[in-house]
Amino acid sequence: MSSNYRNFRNNVPWLILFLEAVFIVLFYFLFSDDSASRPIISDPAFQDVSHMLIFGFGFFLMSLKRYGFSSTGFNLLIVVLGVQCSILIENSLIFLLKVTNEDSLERIRKATVDMTAVVISTGAVLGKTNPVQLILMTVVEIIVFRMSRWINNTFLKITDNISMMHVLLFGAYFGLAVSSRFSEPSPRSEKNASTPKSDLLSMLGTLFLWVFWPRFNYVLAMDKGKAIYNTYFALAVSAVTAFVLSVLTTKDGKFRMAHIRSAVLSGGVTVGYAAHSIEYPWIAMILGLLASVITILGSYCLQTCLNPTLKIHDTSGVHFTFGLPGVLGGLAQVVLLVIKNWTDLPRLGYLVMIHVGAFCQTISVALLTGFIVG
Amino acid sequence: MSSNYRNFRNNVPWLILFLEAVFIVLFYFLFSDDSASRPIISDPAFQDVSHMLIFGFGFFLMSLKRYGFSSTGFNLLIVVLGVQCSILIENSLIFLLKVTNEDSLERIRKATVDMTAVVISTGAVLGKTNPVQLILMTVVEIIVFRMSRWINNTFLKITDNISMMHVLLFGAYFGLAVSSRFSEPSPRSEKNASTPKSDLLSMLGTLFLWVFWPRFNYVLAMDKGKAIYNTYFALAVSAVTAFVLSVLTTKDGKFRMAHIRSAVLSGGVTVGYAAHSIEYPWIAMILGLLASVITILGSYCLQTCLNPTLKIHDTSGVHFTFGLPGVLGGLAQVVLLVIKNWTDLPRLGYLVMIHVGAFCQTISVALLTGFIVG
Amino acid sequence: MSSNYRNFRNNVPWLILFLEAVFIVLFYFLFSDDSASRPIISDPAFQDVSHMLIFGFGFFLMSLKRYGFSSTGFNLLIVVLGVQCSILIENSLIFLLKVTNEDSLERIRKATVDMTAVVISTGAVLGKTNPVQLILMTVVEIIVFRMSRWINNTFLKITDNISMMHVLLFGAYFGLAVSSRFSEPSPRSEKNASTPKSDLLSMLGTLFLWVFWPRFNYVLAMDKGKAIYNTYFALAVSAVTAFVLSVLTTKDGKFRMAHIRSAVLSGGVTVGYAAHSIEYPWIAMILGLLASVITILGSYCLQTCLNPTLKIHDTSGVHFTFGLPGVLGGLAQVVLLVIKNWTDLPRLGYLVMIHVGAFCQTISVALLTGFIVG
Repeated sequence: MSSNYRNFRNNVPWLILFLEAVFIVLFYFLFSDDSASRPIISDPAFQDVSHMLIFGFGFFLMSLKRYGFSSTGFNLLIVVLGVQCSILIENSLIFLLKVTNEDSLERIRKATVDMTAVVISTGAVLGKTNPVQLILMTVVEIIVFRMSRWINNTFLKITDNISMMHVLLFGAYFGLAVSSRFSEPSPRSEKNASTPKSDLLSMLGTLFLWVFWPRFNYVLAMDKGKAIYNTYFALAVSAVTAFVLSVLTTKDGKFRMAHIRSAVLSGGVTVGYAAHSIEYPWIAMILGLLASVITILGSYCLQTCLNPTLKIHDTSGVHFTFGLPGVLGGLAQVVLLVIKNWTDLPRLGYLVMIHVGAFCQTISVALLTGFIVG
Repeated sequence: MSSNYRNFRNNVPWLILFLEAVFIVLFYFLFSDDSASRPIISDPAFQDVSHMLIFGFGFFLMSLKRYGFSSTGFNLLIVVLGVQCSILIENSLIFLLKVTNEDSLERIRKATVDMTAVVISTGAVLGKTNPVQLILMTVVEIIVFRMSRWINNTFLKITDNISMMHVLLFGAYFGLAVSSRFSEPSPRSEKNASTPKSDLLSMLGTLFLWVFWPRFNYVLAMDKGKAIYNTYFALAVSAVTAFVLSVLTTKDGKFRMAHIRSAVLSGGVTVGYAAHSIEYPWIAMILGLLASVITILGSYCLQTCLNPTLKIHDTSGVHFTFGLPGVLGGLAQVVLLVIKNWTDLPRLGYLVMIHVGAFCQTISVALLTGFIVG
Repeated sequence: MSSNYRNFRNNVPWLILFLEAVFIVLFYFLFSDDSASRPIISDPAFQDVSHMLIFGFGFFLMSLKRYGFSSTGFNLLIVVLGVQCSILIENSLIFLLKVTNEDSLERIRKATVDMTAVVISTGAVLGKTNPVQLILMTVVEIIVFRMSRWINNTFLKITDNISMMHVLLFGAYFGLAVSSRFSEPSPRSEKNASTPKSDLLSMLGTLFLWVFWPRFNYVLAMDKGKAIYNTYFALAVSAVTAFVLSVLTTKDGKFRMAHIRSAVLSGGVTVGYAAHSIEYPWIAMILGLLASVITILGSYCLQTCLNPTLKIHDTSGVHFTFGLPGVLGGLAQVVLLVIKNWTDLPRLGYLVMIHVGAFCQTISVALLTGFIVG
């Protein structure tokens, strides 16, 4: 076991080095066209998403005692590898399929958003994998997610913006599927203990994500102003609901960090699908309320019933933090479409079919490949 | 006492839930016009003010040992409730008075700036109130402040930008007035102890606010470039003066965090009133110097003479951190007006009268309603 | 000794106060022209550089146990004094030489970038100087660096953007030269010990700098989009390489924070010189790889061979973190120039001569004045 472990350790640097060498060589061949020589418009949004991924999620997942350094430092390594991988796939697709060429910074931004899926999956398997497994998972997941997006774009004729909104959903269910293949660590083990300090840092990460979440939906949306506006209200209501439910569900009537942490963001996750098309803020507010309720109820049900049955051990609770609100968001999107287009039945049927199709395709691909990788 | 406390505890979630339900219903009725359907121009400044309020003030007030989680987590709850409340009032006014309609994001930004008053007031009563009291205070204060702004705008014909600059002043004196109605906690109590770690986090919050303060004045000002420029110099000089005075006033010649914390920002507070109209940077620099001096002297005098007499217990020192520099800023604004317009006496008298009137009205409303609420 | 030390202590506030008074008086005389009355275009980049300098470097240098507060609080004092000093020099030059007038915010931004040199030098002498020495060093260094830039601009006809890229190089070698004149503190002294907590905060500073580094090169570059793009790839590859080399060079196969901390940023430092002129991302990636390798090798060689011989004690390792990658970057810039212009030999010779000249002039001035100041 010990030599096996040392073997793993020794493989890590060579594996990373090999990947990096492959990336550089591929970059050499794929980026020799004139794509980089065009003028690039700089955009603060690019900075913000990168900031969010490295800081926000880095801290958000830092809730376990032992993973202070691991989840911030290692998080950077995974993000950096994944972004390069994602840009390469994007460029191969452009090269092979003669898709219209995009701005280079736009490509980095999309690659960063893609990486969110991997970072969320990492949260589910935290503490159960070794670095080699994590790096392999990163590369496979980013390829599979890009393929899933490509299927959505090509066969279901969904625009790139909407297909990217599935990123959180994909990440959560991929992570769960991978996680279910690992044995649950003994509950008494020190690995799962959280200290007040790590809890506080995790709370910081949550606040950070809360503040930057409108920017995340902004990057994805087409009607950008409305997306920020609706996301803000959904986040506000889900934060309020998180505090309320946290007090109501605990016996001593105190706020529980774990609840707040997961429910505060759920409004933003849910509203992400429809942020650009919601007409009135009260719809966003009700979605935020529902998302928060579903997250806290979900965290109860899943931890007591579902997880022991299916033997899933979801370290950072990504299922109820990102998975369930994502499902709710997908549902809300379809319901809103139905309300909007109910006079035009054929078009409605077509749109609903497409969205439901993309939704199911994403989840099933996530679960399937997750199992295989696990 | 214990059952009374438990009673309070049990009321908290229902109170919040009731408020949130009222908000959603009101949003439904007030936002059903076409205001949200107009194009919205996104603006990074919106993000920054929100960031500042939740992170900067969250940490800035985290100087007491017991309030680590309370002041970051609870701060978020209060901010979120207050912003919704403020937007509702804004919209009711638009609905009732047929005021010209503004950009939706602009409204969120203004609501966030309004909330600064509440967050500062919270600093004054920290450790003396229970959550129910804090939430009620938030709602009352935001309504009173909005009314005070409305009086300034309507009767004194002051532009919205200038009436919003009173936000820090209002917050400080409202907080003081509320605070004076609570009994002072025993000085030996553990609640007021600060630990090195909480001091460090508080220092971080201060640095954060220092870096983002120019952006705060930028949001309020009309000549935005000049506002940033002058605020930067005022902050720079007040930071230097804070370090100098901190060494001179302590016997062992070491920097004292508490002094630096409060004096570093005073330049930015003072210059806020006149940031857009100061012609030369040296005026801003001298204002920064004076603000820093008045803060540190104020912190001495207030803590030794005034507070014991009036039985005010100002937990986070908001009186000398935001109150006194605000008064100085208001004074400086009037002096600058006098210098600028002294050839045109009738207009000068009118302008001075208006500004002094708005200033007095703001403080008196703050004190009066603060007492009543307390 | 003790009275001597107290003497120093007593001098600190008066020295700072004297400097500040001189600054205000000079501002009065130099800023009375109409420069400030012109419209100023606000720019988020100004905020970001300031943010980076105060937060990023403040934490980055916080790796020693005793300097937690010292390096964040004192860092702010030094930055603030230095920026004022730098703006004054800039304005004197404009006043004396009738140089074309620039935007006021642009001037603050350039002054902030200039200050990076001082902050880096501070890292090299941390723990060996008293506050009076640090403040004097700040003023002298900022004057010398500005002169060095002026020589490059005037005699070597280099644009302002390129002459500012030497800022990191200058800071590192100036700091080293000053550091070599101080006796090495005893290795057993508590001053150099690092705690897990200070290590973690230092890692945070590194992550912060990593995220914001593209923005730093963006400020300096002319083709801004391409600069961000290339810097991002260089940083990504150097982060990956840092992790790999860190595992390979330690015996137990664990990541070592100290290595990662210094090597992660090296790619950004190296690519800074040529970020705007690199055509393909793979060139930036190879530069990032080389920079990371040179940093980690450098940290080995320097700490075991060079430093004991030359009696240099480089507290924060600025030599291999900023010095060596800077040299590599200068070299890369010349090589790229040669490749680009090799058909046009006379122009090539001229360009190479200029860049090498500016490079040598900067380093020699840094070393020379560093020795004298030390």
